[in-house]
Amino acid sequence: MENDKKWIAKTPAPPYYAVILTVVPGEDTSGYDEMISRMVELAKSQEGFLGIESAESEIGVIVSYWEKISNIEAWSKNAFHQTAKSLGKQNWYKSFRTRICRVEQEY
Amino acid sequence: MENDKKWIAKTPAPPYYAVILTVVPGEDTSGYDEMISRMVELAKSQEGFLGIESAESEIGVIVSYWEKISNIEAWSKNAFHQTAKSLGKQNWYKSFRTRICRVEQEY
Repeated sequence: MENDKKWIAKTPAPPYYAVILTVVPGEDTSGYDEMISRMVELAKSQEGFLGIESAESEIGVIVSYWEKISNIEAWSKNAFHQTAKSLGKQNWYKSFRTRICRVEQEY
Repeated sequence: MENDKKWIAKTPAPPYYAVILTVVPGEDTSGYDEMISRMVELAKSQEGFLGIESAESEIGVIVSYWEKISNIEAWSKNAFHQTAKSLGKQNWYKSFRTRICRVEQEY
């Protein structure tokens, strides 16, 4: 099966929501890719999940798409997701930023 | 000077706007990095430009931030930017997607 990260998310007509997570990786990123893969699999099973786009070079930019803002709130409270975020802050990220957006146009 | 792509954009308190450009690169991407660098430099001089975050691996995710939607409209009409987009479509991108978003929360 093709790696999902290769593809552009198939999202519906706007409006919908996006979470832009930008991370500056630290020195040691062992275990990071595996955690991201697990989180992507878990996100897919969440209500309102529409897709994910992710790229990593000097920084990482991970954008997930959601039907409603309430879906994002629910996902942010997911216990496994919270554990992954804590691990990220402690072990992998030098710094990071999360932005919640309403997608208004797509073309 | 540090490469700007390494850093997280310093954006103001929301609301502001984001353009998420997701690209699937084609076989031949010669000249692409140079074009992106030029476009980043040019974008910086545009009214309302707040910052840019960009990562490239299997796909490329480039997020630029703007004060107002009208700034994005003006930038989309910039002649050099239009030329770069045409070059991208013709030469570098297998596919791409642009999403215009209102950033509502940042943390």
